[in-house]
Amino acid sequence: MKTGKAQLEKVSKLIQPHIHRTPVLTSHLINEIAGADLYFKCENFQRMGAFKMRGATNAILNLSEEQKAKGVVTHSSGNFAQALSLAAKSLEVPAYIVMPDSAPEVKKAAVRTYGGEITECPSTLPDRERTADEIQQRTGATFIHPSNDLDVILGQGTAALELLEDEPDLDIIFCPVGGGGLIAGTALAVKHFGNNCKCMGGEPLEADDAWRSLQSGKIETNETANTVADGLKTQLGDINFPIILEHVDEIVRVSEDEIKTALRLIWERMKIIVEPSSAVALAAVIKEKERFKNKKIGIIISGGNVDLAKLPF
Amino acid sequence: MKTGKAQLEKVSKLIQPHIHRTPVLTSHLINEIAGADLYFKCENFQRMGAFKMRGATNAILNLSEEQKAKGVVTHSSGNFAQALSLAAKSLEVPAYIVMPDSAPEVKKAAVRTYGGEITECPSTLPDRERTADEIQQRTGATFIHPSNDLDVILGQGTAALELLEDEPDLDIIFCPVGGGGLIAGTALAVKHFGNNCKCMGGEPLEADDAWRSLQSGKIETNETANTVADGLKTQLGDINFPIILEHVDEIVRVSEDEIKTALRLIWERMKIIVEPSSAVALAAVIKEKERFKNKKIGIIISGGNVDLAKLPF
Repeated sequence: MKTGKAQLEKVSKLIQPHIHRTPVLTSHLINEIAGADLYFKCENFQRMGAFKMRGATNAILNLSEEQKAKGVVTHSSGNFAQALSLAAKSLEVPAYIVMPDSAPEVKKAAVRTYGGEITECPSTLPDRERTADEIQQRTGATFIHPSNDLDVILGQGTAALELLEDEPDLDIIFCPVGGGGLIAGTALAVKHFGNNCKCMGGEPLEADDAWRSLQSGKIETNETANTVADGLKTQLGDINFPIILEHVDEIVRVSEDEIKTALRLIWERMKIIVEPSSAVALAAVIKEKERFKNKKIGIIISGGNVDLAKLPF
Repeated sequence: MKTGKAQLEKVSKLIQPHIHRTPVLTSHLINEIAGADLYFKCENFQRMGAFKMRGATNAILNLSEEQKAKGVVTHSSGNFAQALSLAAKSLEVPAYIVMPDSAPEVKKAAVRTYGGEITECPSTLPDRERTADEIQQRTGATFIHPSNDLDVILGQGTAALELLEDEPDLDIIFCPVGGGGLIAGTALAVKHFGNNCKCMGGEPLEADDAWRSLQSGKIETNETANTVADGLKTQLGDINFPIILEHVDEIVRVSEDEIKTALRLIWERMKIIVEPSSAVALAAVIKEKERFKNKKIGIIISGGNVDLAKLPF
């Protein structure tokens, strides 16, 4: 089975030489505040600074040699652009990255550092898709979606798999919910490797498309997404949504103030640099602390790529 | 001998239950930039966020029961105030902290959180000493100097001792130089536990009193100390200076821009929060990288207590 236990184990072994096994950190002070035992899986220490490195690596490793020779293409202005570029560079595969011309120069520079070839286009989704199509036709490159791709989903799931290897008795694993790749992969890992473990998501109230999708049973979109958690503005896709619908136990929504408070706690108490998106899961645990009292909870810290000149403090 | 190998081992065992054994981190990217193999001893992850917890704990543990009952007193506006407060609280000893009335409210709040009783006074050294004297006379508390105290020095040296246990073949251990407690302790640990290892210091050009003291052979002072590394403005003392003079191989001075560049590297590449003072040693290694090419170098990251509202980026 494509999403079975053996498949996840295989992916974990396959990508292992190309990624970091990230540490699991704890904080007495944050445990006191949350009233629970929290285990932070620190993907901010992952190569290129985010869990996306896992999925990108797995997607490329699953291509045929012929496909690899022609390269990969994606459209992303965020961490997946950098992840696919670095994974491709490490595996000696060409990477074509479609980015909106409005993307910050710092993000374009990061993609270039990792060897990705950038094509700029207007920032609407149809423009980005059309530009990626043109590159595919010209180069024969394979399109890799940042979150709605089974190889990507399985790759992202290896973070939770490793966390459960280190802490087998977790009651819950929480992760942030953006495009759905991370939480779908996490849910599969929890299902196959957890011991009565639940999978829950944290999502900004300002971009609660996934929460609404679970209510309605179909993929909902965000009209606006005015959140500091800029990695979580994207919507679910037709490949990850069925997995989420079947295996995610609950999504908890949090306000912008709750996200910022949790973000500051992580920075000040744990002395680690994490993206605002990474704080959403902790914000959810603290918001509903009465429910989670004394539980053992894993939290996937999604990444640490922030613009130090634009901090929300 | 009071500064011998057995003494340092004893101190390390004594304080172990009360401190964290901090991790040693590495970064491929920073190694590439420095052209050397760097091992960062991350005291920013220490309890209360700095190595000062070690010395404060050892100083209190070496008091008699009668002395402990009467408490400890120090004057500090920085990490030592918090360290002595928390160590005292953990060991159920009263702590009296003299702070300049100009100290930031955030630092006073941290001391109060850790249970220290603050007495404010004008910020000149005579005022601070007089105020501490008064408290000593009133309470019978023992005065503990933040850096010029042998028990404090030995406590600080345990960071380098642990680092050498993890990485026995270091060619050099670098640490920042402020009041001299850390580098004196580090030099003793390097002498007793290193394997042909040197001890070097990094110091801001703007507060290069220790560099000048090594040149002149007597304790020099800073007329001004206009540096972002605000933990390094203090001067050496008559207890730590002889140790430094005998056992420190060299002090390398760095500019403010070099400190800020190294600080940004640590934040952006290692995703950890460190104080500007902590970046001074890395700045020194990068500044003279030709000399340190391919060496195995330990770097003591002194602490991670920063005001997020006042970052130098």
